[in-house]
Amino acid sequence: MYTRPLARLIEEFQRLPGVGPKTAQRLALHVLKRPESEVKALAQALMEAKLQVGYCSICFHLSAEPICEICRAVNRDKLTLCAVADSRDVIAIEKTREYRGKYHVLGGLISPMDGIGPEQLNIAPLIHRVNKEEIKEVILAISPSIEGDTTTLYVGQLLKPFTKVTRIAFGLPMGGDLEYADEITLARALEGRRELE
Amino acid sequence: MYTRPLARLIEEFQRLPGVGPKTAQRLALHVLKRPESEVKALAQALMEAKLQVGYCSICFHLSAEPICEICRAVNRDKLTLCAVADSRDVIAIEKTREYRGKYHVLGGLISPMDGIGPEQLNIAPLIHRVNKEEIKEVILAISPSIEGDTTTLYVGQLLKPFTKVTRIAFGLPMGGDLEYADEITLARALEGRRELE
Repeated sequence: MYTRPLARLIEEFQRLPGVGPKTAQRLALHVLKRPESEVKALAQALMEAKLQVGYCSICFHLSAEPICEICRAVNRDKLTLCAVADSRDVIAIEKTREYRGKYHVLGGLISPMDGIGPEQLNIAPLIHRVNKEEIKEVILAISPSIEGDTTTLYVGQLLKPFTKVTRIAFGLPMGGDLEYADEITLARALEGRRELE
Repeated sequence: MYTRPLARLIEEFQRLPGVGPKTAQRLALHVLKRPESEVKALAQALMEAKLQVGYCSICFHLSAEPICEICRAVNRDKLTLCAVADSRDVIAIEKTREYRGKYHVLGGLISPMDGIGPEQLNIAPLIHRVNKEEIKEVILAISPSIEGDTTTLYVGQLLKPFTKVTRIAFGLPMGGDLEYADEITLARALEGRRELE
């Protein structure tokens, strides 16, 4: 019902995840009110991100360079790898400022239901890295779900002959109230108990 | 923390209304996974909407042509005008398929708090239209709020000497439960009561 170019923009916005007709309309009308320079900046950022960003050839993290910044960094611990499902997880871990090792992005989780087997993921390059480089420990930082657990077990079994393999801890979140924790979280917290030091 | 072109795209998405850091990240990562043609379609739609869409010179509805489709339509009632705050309201009313007259978009509401006076709105052109064209009725379809009521009263007073002026009804929404209606809606519903026919 809107004039053609506006209707088209609303349609295009609706293709984005989580954007329904109302939100798409709001975004499109907002765009019309902004200065041309600002709209151009968004349009250019879209094309540049799409054309320039690929995967790091070593760790498969999103990167505009053939080798990503983290893999190129000389002040990071080369002996430790943290394997994650997704580039988002790299950013989440980097934000903690607690980890100084390198990463390996698997590019998803094993999910036979969705037709994703180990060969679709960057698992072979991980095994190759652990064989080739000197790696003291691989930390599997993968969410606790059916797919996550399957992937962790599968990758863990493949890596164990070559290096120490650990998995991040699961339990009650900080500030979480025991009374309101779900049964599975609580079961994991019990299972992962440690002796008081 | 993301590679430069991706970080820039996340920043640009964050300028959009209602898009926080998490949503911006999700949208940007989604864009990277889509085919280039699809990303290009969005980028082009952005620029084309911004460059081509302006206001109808008669009714101030958003339009890519100097005169909008509704003003150009020959099969619509020229004697009735519906004055609304925004182009979005035109679309909302068009969707009802109940109205066959023409429109006039005021471009906002009188709001002294935000420094918006009658002269910032398309009120003078409305008075001019009613004077020049043969208009039998102007329907004020403006939301019931402080700014909406102020604008309705102001525009209504100016139009009354020239034509019949009506305002859309306010009351209980269809399917609305009387018990859960707020006091103001209920007061308006009582005030707007009609004799049973």
